[in-house]
Amino acid sequence: MSLDGQYDPDNIFAKILRGELPCVKVYEDAHVLAFMDIFPQAPGHVLVVPREAARNALEMTDGALQAAILRVKRIANAVKSALRPDGIILTQFNGAPAGQTVFHVHFHIIPRQDGVALGAHGGGQADMAVLEDQARRIAAEITMP
Amino acid sequence: MSLDGQYDPDNIFAKILRGELPCVKVYEDAHVLAFMDIFPQAPGHVLVVPREAARNALEMTDGALQAAILRVKRIANAVKSALRPDGIILTQFNGAPAGQTVFHVHFHIIPRQDGVALGAHGGGQADMAVLEDQARRIAAEITMP
Repeated sequence: MSLDGQYDPDNIFAKILRGELPCVKVYEDAHVLAFMDIFPQAPGHVLVVPREAARNALEMTDGALQAAILRVKRIANAVKSALRPDGIILTQFNGAPAGQTVFHVHFHIIPRQDGVALGAHGGGQADMAVLEDQARRIAAEITMP
Repeated sequence: MSLDGQYDPDNIFAKILRGELPCVKVYEDAHVLAFMDIFPQAPGHVLVVPREAARNALEMTDGALQAAILRVKRIANAVKSALRPDGIILTQFNGAPAGQTVFHVHFHIIPRQDGVALGAHGGGQADMAVLEDQARRIAAEITMP
């Protein structure tokens, strides 16, 4: 799917936002839902999904984007505190040629370790018990205003 | 450099912000300076540099981050209008193991074309005339509130 097109309300993140599909939740409020990526590119890979029905960040309203980025920052700092990575990538893909696979806007928080290559997204499904443990540890470190 | 450490006011983006080093400017205002990456990962690669003296996004104040992300969105939409890529990656690296090479916070806007692999950052310096042309075309499409 290119950068232009219609929002599909049946994408899997829309279903997760509506509670029709499960997720390993890290955080939620009126603006975003954050959960563990079940195909992590690195241990501790979190997705922050704005509730706004937008295909990508380019289409988001200013207010929803500003609310989302603050939560990305705070959750990324919680990942830093909980998991002590050497670095953190924040990334957001717009359009399939940019790597986007689910067409509801989302931000990736990907911890990096010195000397460890980034895994391919979709390289394998994570162990749910591991994800649950990571989510609990990250959630315990989140501070919101 | 890890995620923790001191901000170095002599990093090259600080020097560009102070006008001590040149750049191929795309946009500037009180909050950010945006310019062409001279080692582009793809044609049209723009860097958006907040004026706030922070090493990375995790350290940014809420207000500076919110101001920056709106400008990232608007400049990314201008890249879309000017260059018509098939996709756009927005990314921001925190710490050397995450790929950060200049320790002043910055956001990458990277156009993607269907079927064209992303180049390595630092793969080669771009032709300045090409960057100047891209910057003019992108700048002409920027709308700010």
